[in-house]
Amino acid sequence: VNLLLFEPDEVRPDGTVTLTGPRARHLLSVLNVEPAQSVRVGLLDGPLGTAAVLSTSAGEVTLGCAFDPSAPPPSPIDLLLALPRPKVLRRLWSQLAALGVGRIMLTNAARVERNYFDTHVLSAPVFRPLLVEGLQQAKDTRLPVVSVHRQFRILVEDDLDGLVQPGLRLVAHPGRHESLLAVVGQGKPGRVLIAIGPEGGWNAFELGLLESRGFITVAMGRRTLRTDTACVALLALAHDALAHSTSRSAT
Amino acid sequence: VNLLLFEPDEVRPDGTVTLTGPRARHLLSVLNVEPAQSVRVGLLDGPLGTAAVLSTSAGEVTLGCAFDPSAPPPSPIDLLLALPRPKVLRRLWSQLAALGVGRIMLTNAARVERNYFDTHVLSAPVFRPLLVEGLQQAKDTRLPVVSVHRQFRILVEDDLDGLVQPGLRLVAHPGRHESLLAVVGQGKPGRVLIAIGPEGGWNAFELGLLESRGFITVAMGRRTLRTDTACVALLALAHDALAHSTSRSAT
Repeated sequence: VNLLLFEPDEVRPDGTVTLTGPRARHLLSVLNVEPAQSVRVGLLDGPLGTAAVLSTSAGEVTLGCAFDPSAPPPSPIDLLLALPRPKVLRRLWSQLAALGVGRIMLTNAARVERNYFDTHVLSAPVFRPLLVEGLQQAKDTRLPVVSVHRQFRILVEDDLDGLVQPGLRLVAHPGRHESLLAVVGQGKPGRVLIAIGPEGGWNAFELGLLESRGFITVAMGRRTLRTDTACVALLALAHDALAHSTSRSAT
Repeated sequence: VNLLLFEPDEVRPDGTVTLTGPRARHLLSVLNVEPAQSVRVGLLDGPLGTAAVLSTSAGEVTLGCAFDPSAPPPSPIDLLLALPRPKVLRRLWSQLAALGVGRIMLTNAARVERNYFDTHVLSAPVFRPLLVEGLQQAKDTRLPVVSVHRQFRILVEDDLDGLVQPGLRLVAHPGRHESLLAVVGQGKPGRVLIAIGPEGGWNAFELGLLESRGFITVAMGRRTLRTDTACVALLALAHDALAHSTSRSAT
């Protein structure tokens, strides 16, 4: 791990925290920490910081933390994702958190198998540690907000405007469409919402509904990508395009 | 599969091919093909095409293929990748082929564990079917050319110029560097070679050697990504940036 993340209530008012269990073992056995050494830390959904090792004993480490005055900004990108196969979703959680997503809305679609919704990979006790793992990898503290929507139409027609802030809306679909870069480059969007369909793609009704709610269709060449590959690829593109459009508008 | 790929010697001079085994079972049991139906096909490293189902019987399908006059262009992107953990590499093969890579050079580096080179995931009988799987997903025929280099310095100093065609050279490293988009957008590179380091990063010697051979350091924000996430993210960025710079220069 490149960063050790704490729940806010783990840290005492004086900034000390005593770790036992896997995180203490990681510090003691993998990082071989000793008193006075410093490690990078962060509070979930709070600031990053530095901690000094105050004491170590068998299976226990006490740290004294100093946190930055403010938390890193939340990701400017949200994701509307047709629920993938449980095996794929399990692999995705940490990657999504590592790349940086503000909100992850998992939705039904015509080509999503109904039993995908029964998986325990959709339960917070399973996915939250995987999200934290991704944040620790990427040195971020901002947990994506996860919501599950069993009815695509109700999500898109009724709930979406309340869930995400206004911004550019893109839907990924193979074909002769503009590239994400071209679309993001045309404006200076504050936020980007990306909709990624199921393995078999969105159907015509779903695409039409998304387009009627302001989504612009983008493609990555002629290639059809697996859901997990497409998620990573599109999030990376959106992040870099936003950073690039901001740096250009600043010059 | 979105495309059925054949080895060139599987197809008879009259364009017919008789399939048995897993591909025949896939056609019969998953796609439920019947005579006169057509399926998308391709020749490995050759053209795409269409095939008509001529006959089916228990476990056997005969197709009559008509191929395009020319093969799709090879990917304009090459990859120099510090050898990842076998488990990560196994997951990567199909994703790399699906995203499109011309040549994959796997190399040693200071932070690569020596025993990673002993894995069977590095043997063609294991990785070739995984590459084909990725091509079938992405509807491409161009197999990445794979080479393994146990000595980083010899690869970069002596062999690299003979292995890849001239083009833009980028090395990914976390930090305050330019984004890939900014660098690719400055020119009209015909090809891009991307170097991606091991989980712990390139060391100073390796970065220096790459820079001395013309590599420009790029970053994706402050984030440190896992090797597999970084590969997918950077390949997607490079593809889109090349397509975007080509479309801009055409207008």
